[in-house]
Amino acid sequence: MAHDALLFAPSRSALAGELYAGVAALPLVCPHGHVDPWLLADPEATLGEPAGALVSSDHYVFRMLHSRGVPLAELGVGGSRADPRAVWQRFAERFSLFAATPTGLWLTLELRDVFGIEARLDGDTAQEVYDELAEKLARPEFAPRPLFERFGIEVLCTTDSLLDDLAAHEALRAAGWGERVRPTLRTDPVMRVDAAGWAESVARLGALTDLEIGSYASLVAGLLTRMAAFQDLGATAIDVSVTRPRADTLALAEADALVQRGLRGESTGDDADRLEARLVYQLAELCFDHGLVMQLHGGSLRNHHADGFSRYGRDIGADIPVATEWTRSLAPLLNALGEDPGFGLVAYTLDESTLTRELAPLAGYYPALTLGAPWWFLDSPAGMRRYLDAVAPVCGLANTAGFVDDTRAFPSIPARHQVWRRVCCDWLAGLVLTGQLTEEDAHALARALAVDLARAAYGLG
Amino acid sequence: MAHDALLFAPSRSALAGELYAGVAALPLVCPHGHVDPWLLADPEATLGEPAGALVSSDHYVFRMLHSRGVPLAELGVGGSRADPRAVWQRFAERFSLFAATPTGLWLTLELRDVFGIEARLDGDTAQEVYDELAEKLARPEFAPRPLFERFGIEVLCTTDSLLDDLAAHEALRAAGWGERVRPTLRTDPVMRVDAAGWAESVARLGALTDLEIGSYASLVAGLLTRMAAFQDLGATAIDVSVTRPRADTLALAEADALVQRGLRGESTGDDADRLEARLVYQLAELCFDHGLVMQLHGGSLRNHHADGFSRYGRDIGADIPVATEWTRSLAPLLNALGEDPGFGLVAYTLDESTLTRELAPLAGYYPALTLGAPWWFLDSPAGMRRYLDAVAPVCGLANTAGFVDDTRAFPSIPARHQVWRRVCCDWLAGLVLTGQLTEEDAHALARALAVDLARAAYGLG
Amino acid sequence: MAHDALLFAPSRSALAGELYAGVAALPLVCPHGHVDPWLLADPEATLGEPAGALVSSDHYVFRMLHSRGVPLAELGVGGSRADPRAVWQRFAERFSLFAATPTGLWLTLELRDVFGIEARLDGDTAQEVYDELAEKLARPEFAPRPLFERFGIEVLCTTDSLLDDLAAHEALRAAGWGERVRPTLRTDPVMRVDAAGWAESVARLGALTDLEIGSYASLVAGLLTRMAAFQDLGATAIDVSVTRPRADTLALAEADALVQRGLRGESTGDDADRLEARLVYQLAELCFDHGLVMQLHGGSLRNHHADGFSRYGRDIGADIPVATEWTRSLAPLLNALGEDPGFGLVAYTLDESTLTRELAPLAGYYPALTLGAPWWFLDSPAGMRRYLDAVAPVCGLANTAGFVDDTRAFPSIPARHQVWRRVCCDWLAGLVLTGQLTEEDAHALARALAVDLARAAYGLG
Repeated sequence: MAHDALLFAPSRSALAGELYAGVAALPLVCPHGHVDPWLLADPEATLGEPAGALVSSDHYVFRMLHSRGVPLAELGVGGSRADPRAVWQRFAERFSLFAATPTGLWLTLELRDVFGIEARLDGDTAQEVYDELAEKLARPEFAPRPLFERFGIEVLCTTDSLLDDLAAHEALRAAGWGERVRPTLRTDPVMRVDAAGWAESVARLGALTDLEIGSYASLVAGLLTRMAAFQDLGATAIDVSVTRPRADTLALAEADALVQRGLRGESTGDDADRLEARLVYQLAELCFDHGLVMQLHGGSLRNHHADGFSRYGRDIGADIPVATEWTRSLAPLLNALGEDPGFGLVAYTLDESTLTRELAPLAGYYPALTLGAPWWFLDSPAGMRRYLDAVAPVCGLANTAGFVDDTRAFPSIPARHQVWRRVCCDWLAGLVLTGQLTEEDAHALARALAVDLARAAYGLG
Repeated sequence: MAHDALLFAPSRSALAGELYAGVAALPLVCPHGHVDPWLLADPEATLGEPAGALVSSDHYVFRMLHSRGVPLAELGVGGSRADPRAVWQRFAERFSLFAATPTGLWLTLELRDVFGIEARLDGDTAQEVYDELAEKLARPEFAPRPLFERFGIEVLCTTDSLLDDLAAHEALRAAGWGERVRPTLRTDPVMRVDAAGWAESVARLGALTDLEIGSYASLVAGLLTRMAAFQDLGATAIDVSVTRPRADTLALAEADALVQRGLRGESTGDDADRLEARLVYQLAELCFDHGLVMQLHGGSLRNHHADGFSRYGRDIGADIPVATEWTRSLAPLLNALGEDPGFGLVAYTLDESTLTRELAPLAGYYPALTLGAPWWFLDSPAGMRRYLDAVAPVCGLANTAGFVDDTRAFPSIPARHQVWRRVCCDWLAGLVLTGQLTEEDAHALARALAVDLARAAYGLG
Repeated sequence: MAHDALLFAPSRSALAGELYAGVAALPLVCPHGHVDPWLLADPEATLGEPAGALVSSDHYVFRMLHSRGVPLAELGVGGSRADPRAVWQRFAERFSLFAATPTGLWLTLELRDVFGIEARLDGDTAQEVYDELAEKLARPEFAPRPLFERFGIEVLCTTDSLLDDLAAHEALRAAGWGERVRPTLRTDPVMRVDAAGWAESVARLGALTDLEIGSYASLVAGLLTRMAAFQDLGATAIDVSVTRPRADTLALAEADALVQRGLRGESTGDDADRLEARLVYQLAELCFDHGLVMQLHGGSLRNHHADGFSRYGRDIGADIPVATEWTRSLAPLLNALGEDPGFGLVAYTLDESTLTRELAPLAGYYPALTLGAPWWFLDSPAGMRRYLDAVAPVCGLANTAGFVDDTRAFPSIPARHQVWRRVCCDWLAGLVLTGQLTEEDAHALARALAVDLARAAYGLG
C-alpha cells in the first residue's frame, strides 16, 4: 500500500484521497490535550531524550508494556529511575505489541514523518534508533516551538489545574504565544469532597484567590475568580472530569452544609456525589454567564490500581471506564441551559453504548450540547468509524465537536490529526459511493470535521 | 453513482441489485406508524402546504433545526403560528444539516421520486421548490388516497389511543378501506398511575365502554372492551410503550389497591412502576386470549424537555432513550406465555447493547417473541446493518419482525421501505459473496425481510 | 464464490488467502469446550446416530427449532423420547432457519468436510442424508478417536464438575491420551449457597475429598483437594461461571457464617452474592498459588425458562445474558493479583458493551488478565469482527487469549476453528491493505490468533 492511501479502503481510496487532499494541509486545531505548557513557554525547553519523550511520559505506551509484564519501575514511570537506554530497549523489543493499535500507528508515523526514521523498531535496531532519535531531539529544529510551527498548529489548549499558578501561560502571553497556546481550567481538585486533600485544595484555592473559603458561596466565588484568571490568559473552556456525569440543583443551604462537613473532614461518599452534581451544574451556570465552553468528560474511574497509584502517582494507564448514564443525569442542566445556543457543553463518553442511546439523541435536540470526539480507548480508526456511524445519522455531524488529540505526547499530534482526517475522508467517501452524500457535501464535511467544528464548539473561531 | 446502486457497496452492487430487483416492486406492508388516519379516512384530505407537510409535522426534521438554534416556535411546531414560507426558508437554508442522516436521505428520495423535484434544496432554491411542491400538493393525484395506491401500500396500521373514538377507522371501513388501513390500540393513557390525567383517562375509558371503572378488574374489563372495538375495525395488534420494559404478576388485591390510590390521586412512582408491570403482563394475557399481537416499545423517556413540552406538547423530538433490561424483566411473561407460538410479542429496543445480550438470545429460544425492526434513532443504513449483524447470527432472521416505517410523514413511506430493502439486499449480498449464504436463500430472505416477516409477525398474513 | 475464499471479502481475499494458507493446517488447540470426555476415553464410543449427534445434543441447534415452534420433546431433548428419523426430518425441513447464522455455517462445513455430504439439506433430502450420515457414523474411522487425529487436535480440554469422579480422565491417562485430553474443574455446584442442592453438593465434595466440610475453611480445603486431583490428571485451568462477575474479600468469620447458614438451608440471595464473590476471589488465590489458570465466564442467567428446566434440565438453550460490570467488580482481585504475570485470569463476556468500556482497558493494564474469545452469542463472523475491532486497538492482540470452540458438538470443532482463523485472516488483511499493519506482522498475528495465544493463556504451551 502506498503511504498516500493509508487508512483508505481500496474500493474508495481514489475518492478518499481526493477528499483528504483538501484537508491534509489545514492547520491543526487542538482544543483539548495534556501537553505541558512549559514545553512551549520555556524557550529553552526540549523534548529530552527518546525514552523519556516517547515511553516514560506516555501512559498509552507504558501501560501496554506493563500489561505484558514489564514493571513500571523499569520503564521510568512516575519519576522512577531507570536507564533510558534500557527503557528504550525494553520498548523496542516489544514494539510488536502495538501492532493493530492506534498507539503503534501514531508511533510509526511520528518516527517516520517527524524524525525521518524508517527503520523497523525492534530489539536489534533499538540502540541505533535511539542514537538517531537522540541526535535529532538535540537539534534546535526539534525543540517544541519549531515543531509547533512545523506541525502547523493553529491553537493548542492545555489542561491546567484550577490551582495552577498559570506562570507558564503568563510566560506564553509575554512571549506573544498567548493566542496559540491557551489554558483550560480543570476542576478536579475540588470536585470530590470525600477525596483525600480536598480541604487542602480548597485552602489553596482560597490562597490563590485571596478569599476566605468557608462556605459553598465562597467556594463558587473562588471558582469564578479562577475562571476569570484563566480567561484573561486566553482560556475559552473549562474541563470537568467525573466518573458519574451528573448535574443537579441543590438548595444553597444543603450545598453549604456539604462544604462545611467537607472542611471538617466528615464527608461521606453520598455527600461527595451530591456536591459533585451541584458543582457540575454550578460550573455550567458560570460558563454560561461568562462565555466559557464546558467540557464534560464522563465515565473514567481513576486510579484503579491502588498500589500503582501509591508508587507512581496518577496517569499511569490504570484509569478504567465504567458504565454511565446521561439522559436522566443531565436533564436538570439541559432543561435549564440546553435551549440556549449561546451556551456550549461538549460531552465525551467512554461508554459507546450511550452514543446512539443517549448522547446523540440529546445532542440532536438541545442546541447547547455537542458530542466530543471519540476519546481515549475509542481513538482507533475502528473506534472513530463506529463513532461516526453511530452519531452522524442521529444528530448530524453539525452537532459534533470535531476532533481533539487529547495527548501529552507532543510529537504525536500531527499523526493523531492525520489518522482522524483520513478516517473521516474514508468514511465520507463510503457515503458518497453509496449515494448517501454528494461529493460537494463530502468536501465541506471533511473540512468541518478537520477544523471548523472544533473551532466552533470550543470557541476558537 | 447511479441511482440504481443507492446504498450498495461497489464491491457487491451487482448482486445486491439483483436481489433488490426481486423485492423493489413488492407491496409495502406497514404494520406500525403514526400517520393520521383522517388523512385516508377523509376523502377530501390533502397533505397541506409544504412546510406543514414536511417540516412542522415531522419531529425528525424540526428537532435537527432546533438543535442548531432555530426556536420551535419559528418552525410552526405544536400549533405555533409561523409563516409557512418562512419556515420552509429556514429549513432549506439548513438542509445540509441533514447530510449523512437518514432523514436527509428520505427527504431527498421523497422530493425526487414522489414529487419529481431534482433541485438541490438550499436557501437560494427554497422558494422555487416551495412553489413547485405547493402546486403539486394541491393536485388531486397528490392527495393521500391516490398516493396510497401509487405507493403500493398493501396495509397501513395507524397508532390510536385506546381513548380514540375510532371515527376515522369507522369512516375507512364504510369507504371500503378497512382492510387497508387498520387501527392499533395504544395504551399510553392508562399505563402510569402517577401521571397527570390518569384518573381522567380512566374516567374517559369508562365513558367509552359504558363501565364504571373503580377497580383493577373493571379497568381490565375496559381495556378488553376497547381491544374488541379495535379488533372489530381491523386491528391485529396493540402497542405498549414504556420507559422500562417490565412485565410482572401482582396479586389482584394489590393491583386493585394501586388503582384505588390512583383514583384518589395518591400514587407514588413505585405504585406506577408496579401497576405498569402488571398491566403489561395483563395486556399480554388479553392479547394471547383474543388473538392480538402485542408490540412492546421499550426505553424511551418521554418529554425530556419540560419547557418544550409545556409550550409545544408531545412528540417534539425530545424523547430520549435510557438503558433497558429485558432478560429479567420479561421473565415472568415469557415463562407464562413465551412457549406458545400462537402468541405474538414484538419487542423493540432503543438500546443496541441489548440486541446480542438479551433480546436476540430471548427471541432465539421463545417461540412467542420476535424482534422489532431497528427503531427510531437506529433507523439509518448503518443502524440497520448493525441490527442485522447483531441479530441474525443469534436468533436467525426468522425470529425478526421485518420492517416498520414508524412514520407520521406519509409521503416518506416509500423512501423508508426502499432504504430498508436496499440495505437488506446489500447485507445479504455480502453474505453470499463471502460464502455464508446461497443466492437462493438470499432471494428468499430478501423477500422475507421486505414483506413476509412483517405480515407474519403482525398477523397481517 | 470458491470455497477457498470463504469468509474473505472480495477486495482482500488474495491477501487473506495467503495469511490463511499459513495457519490452515496448524493443529487445533481447544482450551475450553463441553465435549463429553467419555467420547474419547471409551475406545468403543461412537457419535451415535445423526439426530442424536447433531440435533438433540446441541442446544445451538434445537433452540432455534424450538424458537419457531417445535416442542423440545419432539426433538429428543433432555432424554425425551423421539424417533430419531422424525427429529431429523423436523430439523432438515427447517434447515433454512439457520441461514446467516454461525450454526448454519458450521453444520454446512461439518456435513461437507467431515462427512462428505454435499446435498442441500431440506425436507426432501432429509432421509437420504440421514442414511448417508448414519452409514458413515457407523464406520470405525468416524469414531471419536480417529476423528480427533484427523482433525489435528493438539489438545482438548473438557469441562468437568468439581464433583466428577474423573474416571473418564483416568481412563484417558491410562490409554496414553492424558496430555491430549485434559479436564477443567468447573465450580458451579458450590458457588451459590442459596441454590437447591448446595448442601448436598458440599456433602458430596466432602465425600470425594475425605473431608468433613462444615466451615468455610474446610470448603476451601475441599476445593483445593479437587484442584490437585484435576491437576494430577492434566488440568491447567479451572472454570468459574457466574451471572455477576464479582470477586471480593470477606472476613473469614463472615464467610464461615455464610457457609453455616447454607448448611442449615437458611441462605438468602444476598448471602449467596457475598459468598460467591468471596469464592471467586478465593479460587483466584488458589489458582495463583498452585499454577492454574482461572477462566471466568460472566453474565449468563441460567435456566431462564423454568418449565423447560424442570422438564428437560440444564443446557436447553434458555441461558440468557444480562448486563455485567467488571471494572469495580474485579478491582479487589486485580489489585491483589493482577500485577503478577505468573497469574492468569481469562475473562469472557457476553455483554459487548463491556469490551471497550471495561475489559480491554483492564487487560491493557493488568498483566494477569487476558480477554477470552468472543463467546456463545458472539461467536459469529460478525461478532468476531466486532470483537477484534473493539479489543485489539485498546489492549493489543497479545492481551487476548485466542480462540475457544466452546462446543459439545465434537464433529463441529474443525469448522469452528476454520471460521475463526478465516475471520482473523480477513480482518488482518484489511489492516494490511489500509497500511495499519505490515504483512510480516500479519502473518505472525494470524499464527498467534490461531494457536499461540491460546497455548499461552491456558498454560498449554
